[in-house]
Amino acid sequence: MTDAAVSRQKAAIIGGGLIGGGWAARFALHGWDVAVFDPHAGAAERVAEVLDNARKSLPALADFPMPAEREMSFVSNVAEAVADATWIQESVTEDLALKHSVLAEIQAHAADDAIIGSSTSGFKPSQLQNGASKPAQIIVAHPFNPVYLLPLVEVVAGPAGDAERTRRACDLLTSIGMQPLVLRKEIDAHLADRLMEAVWREGLWLVNDDIATTQEIDDSIRYGFGLRWAQMGLFETFRLAGGKEGMAHFIRQFGPALQWPWTKLTDVPELTEELVQKIAVQSDAQSGQYTLAELEQIRDRNLVGMLRVLKERDWGAGQVLNAHDGFLAAQAGDNAVHDASAPLRLLDLSVLPAWIDYNGHMTEFRYTQVFSDSCEALLRVIGMHDDYVAAGHSYYTAETHTQFFDEVGVNEAMYTTVQILAADAKRMHVFYRLHATEDDRLLAHLEAMYLHVDTHSGKVCAATAEDLRVLMKITDAHSSVPRPEAAGRCVGQR
Amino acid sequence: MTDAAVSRQKAAIIGGGLIGGGWAARFALHGWDVAVFDPHAGAAERVAEVLDNARKSLPALADFPMPAEREMSFVSNVAEAVADATWIQESVTEDLALKHSVLAEIQAHAADDAIIGSSTSGFKPSQLQNGASKPAQIIVAHPFNPVYLLPLVEVVAGPAGDAERTRRACDLLTSIGMQPLVLRKEIDAHLADRLMEAVWREGLWLVNDDIATTQEIDDSIRYGFGLRWAQMGLFETFRLAGGKEGMAHFIRQFGPALQWPWTKLTDVPELTEELVQKIAVQSDAQSGQYTLAELEQIRDRNLVGMLRVLKERDWGAGQVLNAHDGFLAAQAGDNAVHDASAPLRLLDLSVLPAWIDYNGHMTEFRYTQVFSDSCEALLRVIGMHDDYVAAGHSYYTAETHTQFFDEVGVNEAMYTTVQILAADAKRMHVFYRLHATEDDRLLAHLEAMYLHVDTHSGKVCAATAEDLRVLMKITDAHSSVPRPEAAGRCVGQR
Repeated sequence: MTDAAVSRQKAAIIGGGLIGGGWAARFALHGWDVAVFDPHAGAAERVAEVLDNARKSLPALADFPMPAEREMSFVSNVAEAVADATWIQESVTEDLALKHSVLAEIQAHAADDAIIGSSTSGFKPSQLQNGASKPAQIIVAHPFNPVYLLPLVEVVAGPAGDAERTRRACDLLTSIGMQPLVLRKEIDAHLADRLMEAVWREGLWLVNDDIATTQEIDDSIRYGFGLRWAQMGLFETFRLAGGKEGMAHFIRQFGPALQWPWTKLTDVPELTEELVQKIAVQSDAQSGQYTLAELEQIRDRNLVGMLRVLKERDWGAGQVLNAHDGFLAAQAGDNAVHDASAPLRLLDLSVLPAWIDYNGHMTEFRYTQVFSDSCEALLRVIGMHDDYVAAGHSYYTAETHTQFFDEVGVNEAMYTTVQILAADAKRMHVFYRLHATEDDRLLAHLEAMYLHVDTHSGKVCAATAEDLRVLMKITDAHSSVPRPEAAGRCVGQR
Repeated sequence: MTDAAVSRQKAAIIGGGLIGGGWAARFALHGWDVAVFDPHAGAAERVAEVLDNARKSLPALADFPMPAEREMSFVSNVAEAVADATWIQESVTEDLALKHSVLAEIQAHAADDAIIGSSTSGFKPSQLQNGASKPAQIIVAHPFNPVYLLPLVEVVAGPAGDAERTRRACDLLTSIGMQPLVLRKEIDAHLADRLMEAVWREGLWLVNDDIATTQEIDDSIRYGFGLRWAQMGLFETFRLAGGKEGMAHFIRQFGPALQWPWTKLTDVPELTEELVQKIAVQSDAQSGQYTLAELEQIRDRNLVGMLRVLKERDWGAGQVLNAHDGFLAAQAGDNAVHDASAPLRLLDLSVLPAWIDYNGHMTEFRYTQVFSDSCEALLRVIGMHDDYVAAGHSYYTAETHTQFFDEVGVNEAMYTTVQILAADAKRMHVFYRLHATEDDRLLAHLEAMYLHVDTHSGKVCAATAEDLRVLMKITDAHSSVPRPEAAGRCVGQR
């Protein structure tokens, strides 16, 4: 964590499309002031849509409270946007002359120590820096859509770059949950887009030659190697294919195949209007039943779910999230505890499509799953989670009483709170509430009694005063919160 | 579901490497008899390792019981392996002369209606069929490692193929949980490997030219676009980048970039010993801290988690798993017993690997899920399930009280019973018990109050005497069953 990351800072977003909007959302949800400049009609609406998508998904990746979101302002010129900005992100169209003119205007008004990142996917930093008043101030910071969810950002400083500025840029990007990948040498299109372009070009050939439709090509990825690449990439996956003989053996074995005429690498398919229309028609047949907004939300929910899986396994992109949790925890401090004069907000989540029953509402046991996840969150807050369990102690659920009050439909946002009714060294008696986010209506509540156990013997045992410190602090604070009427109620009681 | 899929069947696996072993494991865990032939030393051990990995992961994808696993036999010749086999899978080294000789021996002993699938990644079916006694019997069935987890299988029948046999092959592959992707035209390397090869070739250049290490290339995939491709593939992802202007707009915009000299598509890097060693050294630095076995298990745990996420969202590979659940459920049948003078036995099931928490026991909300499924079973028994709901009436859960008594570990068998405490036209008050099958010990019980509702108004209403006939019959019978002591208990009551 850097000092820069915890104090209040401002980001200027120049160019408010899908990428600029994604940057704006990521900065704002991490507690930065954000000023956006984009002269195009509809830019503000587009950024608002992206921010809305980000609000629904990004916080679900964190297991500690995010900083309070700052208001985002839309300003009318570059000078106003970049004033006092620590980070300035240029995301205008891929047109070098346009980028030069925008970058010159930015540099005329920006502070000398501000970092100017460009979202360019195609240009090298030396091309952007060419003719600039302060070349070293401009770096490539190339993100991936959706910018608010995917951690990767390629950082290229180019020949004019200096190590100290690059390090500071990486620290700032890390503080907003990203994973900077620093390229030592600049190269057209950086790394990832080169790999994607290779697949894209081959995909175009397959469609052009009527070997496969866009749907079939996508299925050949997402039912197979796409799942491997999401967590190990290319080389690590192939390392496994090499078996005990190792990577060198695998490559020697694979060598001859490279000489075979498998892929059409020597030529580029001509983008005739016929090919363009063929792809557009196939894409409509594949995905046209969804609006773009629906497809974006489907994508985001899938990404959140997969990222959380990788987080649980502390692997790949999940490692980035866990590291960022440490950062958020340090930022949040004991806020959760100090703020305990009301029921403690634990989880923010939404109803997944698979959670719906034949009545069209969230099915019963998913309510309980949400309460169970809330218990996990509570154990994290009181510092009695993974390490505590590994050390041989845990809480077991002795009994629960649940009352259901209202239905909730697919994709609706919800949150849970917990109120500690009583706690001692051996028992914890708590009351969870599940609310709909939109109108705060109560969906259900669950009263639970947990027993503190020695996991080796399976017997109830007393926790130490030190281990109970946070729990007791919250319990004290909650002693002034009115006791729920339903606590102590039995099934069928009027 | 086909008849073929539910009766006992045999698969012959010719070639027992990583791929052959994966096939063997997938067939065996789906209740097929499996005979493996591979003359190489160590093949049996390798297949056993793969089977062990599969046992730890594949069942975690299912929410219905898998068929009982069959014993796998290692046999000493092709003739013995293929005798009585419905499916014969060839997975020997990518050497056309060798494949021809193995396929000829298979055809000399196989039943005429057996399907012979080849795992070849490079050869077209016409190449395999060339000179064969029954060309149409041989198809390409190209899977992806790990074969027991990834659903994709590319099916290519080639010019000699017939539609009926291809359809039967696809039915059989579907019955073992796979997603056949049928290619209409044969082509070198089919679909997915062409896409992967394009990336591999570009990756080799990046390493060769010291632009990036294997680790950096993998990170550029798994922190970014790899996560997109795992759930949407290439074209659907780019559809989102096109924005409201649509796919055709996106392609026209992207067109010029294809003409830029981004990727080294016109040439193949020479696989000098220096390049081979560079990759091997970088791969060791990246992944050498894990053994292959560790890396395989990490990969499998990641895949299971991501696949379950997609299953909950009913998207991509998760749709394949949900469809397969329907298949497993139909196979399992309905075990409800109709003897109402004692608590009614509702469900027989076992603890799935994915139901285990960090303490190593079935996690809390899975108990509730089992009770929720028991409620579904009860509604089926009393004739108030799907059709009843479709006609506008249903039972909603008003409240539940759960007590937890004992832990239960992975794969343990369990059953539930229900006792009707009281019922009238508007309410149903019931008491479920969950027992371990082995020793009948009580694991948990749940008391529930359900209200009969009009689903259109969402209001409580009276059910008709006719609709209540079965429920009242059971209620009468249960009036002589002792009332559970715990009924009417509230949380924390001593």
